[in-house]
Amino acid sequence: MAASKKTGGLAGVVAGETALCTVGKEGAGLTYRGYDIYDLAANARFEEVAYLLMHGALPTQAEFDAYVARLKTLRGLPDALKKVLEMVPAHAHPMDVLRTGVSMLGNLEPETDFSMQAEVADKLLACIPSMLLYWHRFHTDGKRIDVETDDDSVAGHFLHMLHDQSPSELHQRCLDTTLILYAEHEFNASTFTARVITGTLSDFHSAVTGAIGALRGPLHGGANEAAMELIQKFSSPDEATAGVLGMLERKEKIMGFGHRVYTTSDPRNSVNKKMSKQLAEEAGDTHLYDVSEAVETVMWEQKKLFANADFFAASVYHYMGIPTYLFTPIFVCSRITGWSAHIMEQRSNNKLIRPGADYTGPGLQTWVPIEQR
Amino acid sequence: MAASKKTGGLAGVVAGETALCTVGKEGAGLTYRGYDIYDLAANARFEEVAYLLMHGALPTQAEFDAYVARLKTLRGLPDALKKVLEMVPAHAHPMDVLRTGVSMLGNLEPETDFSMQAEVADKLLACIPSMLLYWHRFHTDGKRIDVETDDDSVAGHFLHMLHDQSPSELHQRCLDTTLILYAEHEFNASTFTARVITGTLSDFHSAVTGAIGALRGPLHGGANEAAMELIQKFSSPDEATAGVLGMLERKEKIMGFGHRVYTTSDPRNSVNKKMSKQLAEEAGDTHLYDVSEAVETVMWEQKKLFANADFFAASVYHYMGIPTYLFTPIFVCSRITGWSAHIMEQRSNNKLIRPGADYTGPGLQTWVPIEQR
Ligand SMILES: CC(C)(COP(=O)(O)OP(=O)(O)OC[C@H]1O[C@@H](n2cnc3c(N)ncnc32)[C@H](O)[C@@H]1OP(=O)(O)O)[C@@H](O)C(=O)NCCC(=O)NCCS
Ligand SMILES: CC(C)(COP(=O)(O)OP(=O)(O)OC[C@H]1O[C@@H](n2cnc3c(N)ncnc32)[C@H](O)[C@@H]1OP(=O)(O)O)[C@@H](O)C(=O)NCCC(=O)NCCS
Repeated sequence: MAASKKTGGLAGVVAGETALCTVGKEGAGLTYRGYDIYDLAANARFEEVAYLLMHGALPTQAEFDAYVARLKTLRGLPDALKKVLEMVPAHAHPMDVLRTGVSMLGNLEPETDFSMQAEVADKLLACIPSMLLYWHRFHTDGKRIDVETDDDSVAGHFLHMLHDQSPSELHQRCLDTTLILYAEHEFNASTFTARVITGTLSDFHSAVTGAIGALRGPLHGGANEAAMELIQKFSSPDEATAGVLGMLERKEKIMGFGHRVYTTSDPRNSVNKKMSKQLAEEAGDTHLYDVSEAVETVMWEQKKLFANADFFAASVYHYMGIPTYLFTPIFVCSRITGWSAHIMEQRSNNKLIRPGADYTGPGLQTWVPIEQR
Repeated sequence: MAASKKTGGLAGVVAGETALCTVGKEGAGLTYRGYDIYDLAANARFEEVAYLLMHGALPTQAEFDAYVARLKTLRGLPDALKKVLEMVPAHAHPMDVLRTGVSMLGNLEPETDFSMQAEVADKLLACIPSMLLYWHRFHTDGKRIDVETDDDSVAGHFLHMLHDQSPSELHQRCLDTTLILYAEHEFNASTFTARVITGTLSDFHSAVTGAIGALRGPLHGGANEAAMELIQKFSSPDEATAGVLGMLERKEKIMGFGHRVYTTSDPRNSVNKKMSKQLAEEAGDTHLYDVSEAVETVMWEQKKLFANADFFAASVYHYMGIPTYLFTPIFVCSRITGWSAHIMEQRSNNKLIRPGADYTGPGLQTWVPIEQR
């Protein structure tokens, strides 16, 4: 997990300061405000991690209870937003739905002053799952669901709206854990997008809308869906091994592998892998897990490429009955916490983010009037 | 116009290559694909510049005619988009309206494959003014305007929809010229946002939505509206001088001045200033021009800060009867060309844009269960 030696795409370039996160530093592969991701994944609840990121310290019991209660009150959606979600076509990309939903919310409940930022952050954390599932359920089974459930957690709220019932303890805990793992990751492309937008002193919804757009790409958050599509193609681990070997020969990229900063492993992977195994056993069907493991093995043997956070997340979600096209939006439901913390951090010591470019175009041209071209 | 010696915010850091633009290089202050901005502002039409940016060369007469005719056919808005624009409140920020409109269009007419990119770029160039003015007219005078005008230019289309009649030759040409000046500016914050989003291999609408969010900020495109608010406060040049001196003493920023890359002047300013004067004389009311000039003088004398592209653009638009809150959206109507060209350029040699950060947070923390906090 040493620093990368890659060039281009600002690899290894320091673009600013952060007190939120370390990625690939010695001692701990990933920390949020100094806490090792393994401690958080094993012991915390997602809302504790959200609080930590937003407020700088773990909450006391009273602070935690108040925060969870407050988030519950913010799950509702304005009527105009519901109408827009109904008008977004059924076949739309769910990331486009969230991008549009957050943007529309910025019209209905604008951040007219930066003193509102904590409020906006809480609202987004609470209501992004509502937007997503309201749209999803409306278009898949024609139901206008009640998005103000009484569940005590984002994970419970999400699964409740999806399946019309509160989830099992195990499923809730597994989703909660992936939300913790996805919450924050330093200057990744979507967070960096949010900071560049924030650097112009634009509003919160603009920054989050842009971040959703960045996360959508298959080289970033979109990788978990692409990973799912890959592993579902194979009917056995042997077939998976052969299939991946063929893809590597054809120089195709295998989604869910590799990372800009990590070089030998992604610390989040072992947690996801363990959950995937547990859920596979619970379901009495280890096929997808076995295929995933075969892909992981061949990628390491052939290319020394390791599974990142997105690879085993795919089977984890699948075992919980979550449709593939909702995988990347789950990433939004979690990373909104990291984005929000970075927006606030950027504002607290703002500087316009505006790099330069190497010019590779033509030299000075002489103007020629259109009649003479 | 030498390179800046500023630090932080990626000042002076090369974040990639571009063949589209030079900013502050010797010989010409600003070039688009090798053409000096002064040649383009004096001789080109905005659609010629758009073609140049998108296609790499100035169009022949036949290519130009076909391009203009094609853009005309793309001015219409899908019904669902019109409904969304009607549902966005009247008091919304017009940049939020455009951000939402482009995002919604991405649901209705998604870029499902990158081979569609030129088509998406043309559609956005043609219909962003339609979105803006449809929303504006619906909420200011309750009219559902016909956005498919027969005007031969973006400038004509815009002013026609705004004022319910085709503009004068002078107004059309002045708006056209500001569109040329605003079209492209290397790795400015909104364009860089579009490139970071594109770097994840996300779609066109995501990149543009994020760019609009970045342009909205007062340190970037939002400066032209802030400049207008400033100059309107003063009833005379003397009052302006005194007022600005006071602001500088209080260490307030004067919007429309200064630049990340330019150090002694912004080449676009002299063009805007000349137009502002001409329009002032045409209107028989030079008050705003005189006030602007007084502000420019005192800023240079006191701080060696020069007017940037946004400062005299404010009075130019005002003299044409454009309401202040539509100033930054006009910037979108123009810069969509630069953004589109950059999105295509980024894709043609893509690399994830993901920098690093200096960690300033706490060292490793020991987990403490919530009951013990
Ligand atoms: C994450 C990622 C974008 C990092 O990219 P990067 O730092 O720009 O590095 P590159 O893409 O240039 O990769 C370096 C080399 O490893 C190869 N490589 C990296 N990831 C690969 C993958 N998943 N499958 C196959 N080859 C891969 C590249 O092809 C490249 O090989 P080359 O030098 O022969 O051209 C990249 O690993 C990737 O595309 N992974 C798949 C998408 C994914 O899982 N994203 C989620 C990240 S959490
Ligand atoms: C464009 C801009 C963001 C560039 O910013 P930058 O490269 O990060 O430079 P800084 O903002 O750090 O400015 C450097 C110094 O000049 C001062 N300065 C820059 N622009 C100023 C302005 N418009 N009014 C007053 N002071 C200004 C800064 O306060 C700073 O002074 P300091 O060193 O004493 O703190 C900046 O000039 C600005 O905010 N301008 C006003 C907004 C604007 O017109 N934007 C449109 C740009 S086309």
